[in-house]
Amino acid sequence: MMKRIMLTVAYDGTDYHGWQVQPGVPTIEGELNRALRALTGEEIVVTGASRTDAGVHSMGNVAVFDTSCPIPAANLPRALDGRLPEDIVVVSAVYVKPDFHPRHCDHRKTYEYRIYNDRIRDPQTDRYSYHYYGDLDVEKMKEAAAFLKGTHDFSSFCAAATDVEDKVRTIYDISVCREGKMIKIRVTGNGFLYNMVRIISGTLLFAGNGRTLPEEVKSIIEGKDRQLAGPTLPAKGLTQIEIDYTEAGDIYENDQTVM
Amino acid sequence: MMKRIMLTVAYDGTDYHGWQVQPGVPTIEGELNRALRALTGEEIVVTGASRTDAGVHSMGNVAVFDTSCPIPAANLPRALDGRLPEDIVVVSAVYVKPDFHPRHCDHRKTYEYRIYNDRIRDPQTDRYSYHYYGDLDVEKMKEAAAFLKGTHDFSSFCAAATDVEDKVRTIYDISVCREGKMIKIRVTGNGFLYNMVRIISGTLLFAGNGRTLPEEVKSIIEGKDRQLAGPTLPAKGLTQIEIDYTEAGDIYENDQTVM
Repeated sequence: MMKRIMLTVAYDGTDYHGWQVQPGVPTIEGELNRALRALTGEEIVVTGASRTDAGVHSMGNVAVFDTSCPIPAANLPRALDGRLPEDIVVVSAVYVKPDFHPRHCDHRKTYEYRIYNDRIRDPQTDRYSYHYYGDLDVEKMKEAAAFLKGTHDFSSFCAAATDVEDKVRTIYDISVCREGKMIKIRVTGNGFLYNMVRIISGTLLFAGNGRTLPEEVKSIIEGKDRQLAGPTLPAKGLTQIEIDYTEAGDIYENDQTVM
Repeated sequence: MMKRIMLTVAYDGTDYHGWQVQPGVPTIEGELNRALRALTGEEIVVTGASRTDAGVHSMGNVAVFDTSCPIPAANLPRALDGRLPEDIVVVSAVYVKPDFHPRHCDHRKTYEYRIYNDRIRDPQTDRYSYHYYGDLDVEKMKEAAAFLKGTHDFSSFCAAATDVEDKVRTIYDISVCREGKMIKIRVTGNGFLYNMVRIISGTLLFAGNGRTLPEEVKSIIEGKDRQLAGPTLPAKGLTQIEIDYTEAGDIYENDQTVM
């Protein structure tokens, strides 16, 4: 019997050309398809929730696929562990309703951008953060971030190379905090434009180093012009944290043990 | 004028065959020699404080060398940054007295072994910790660790492949703490035998999972037999934290700006 399964997937994106399958290069989706095909013997193609860019990491991306394989979903994380590279981990697997699509339903996505703020780089955090050695005023970054909360046209925070027309998005929550030498920018929204979190982070960096005044963020949004915002910070500092489907209603199959 | 310089070096050891130069494979010492030779034009060979094993990381290993290069020591971290691979960082550089040797003087070394204790691996901590999915009782690990403090013959905690005869060492401090899903074992001593911290960590793991009683550590020490202690945990969980030369007296040149 065909069942739809939702995987939650964590990965270190350093060595991958992003999520989406591309010929001849390693991708997260490609590795998942390969491991699932080897395990089930079926020609599985997963559907991802966030098609993260090259070098971006994740603690909880979502991949959905249909299978008639009799292995219970709950056993998949263990079964896939030996078949996936060490830097990709299936955190959980559950049965979802047959019409569930991970992008075409209400959800909230959370991303974290990390800036390692010290004179000297730290090789143990360097893969998962952007090193900035100058002084950063976190209070100013918080002030600037507050202007981004809410529903806006985020054209100024979208890479030029996009064919998305509607650039209105809602940021439900945005926070900036310092934990030791690490500054963490967390953003939760109903969807993000191309490079949006990395451009937001570059703009907050400029608020932190004094190149932009926090209140200027208001006019940056209103200008709807990519040139007004700060730089696109490097991919390696970005981690997709989680995708929350609470607002999509009940997406789960009642009986998680049925096959 | 010839000056002796002490570098403090941090590295992600994952992709290196340890500290010590070996033909045909990348090593930390080899990369430092190469970068310093390119910068100074001199045939520099550094002397390391801890010749860490393949896969072991460091936040503060020490390398000493002599040079007549006119670049002030304080500028070396920046000057070397572009010449070293991204996973090796020179944290600081200072002038030391001409007779200072990083191993042949009193010092305290601190190591940390990290156990990521959760059902599922986390790809962002996986390079710098050992994943153990079973239950671990940190209180029992602390009890067991307490027996290791002090001066003992640590033969039971030394890999067989060693030609060191005197296996008496002093552990000044040993602590076990849990931070979220990470268990950190910190050990400070006047020197460590081959694989000693990794065998100590394996023994504390056995105390944590109930395979060994904490008080058995006393008889493991007294038995002076490697077979009595726990397993050697993998290199990737081990990070050398710092080397403290306070007890060596004044090792620094008074004038750090002289050349």
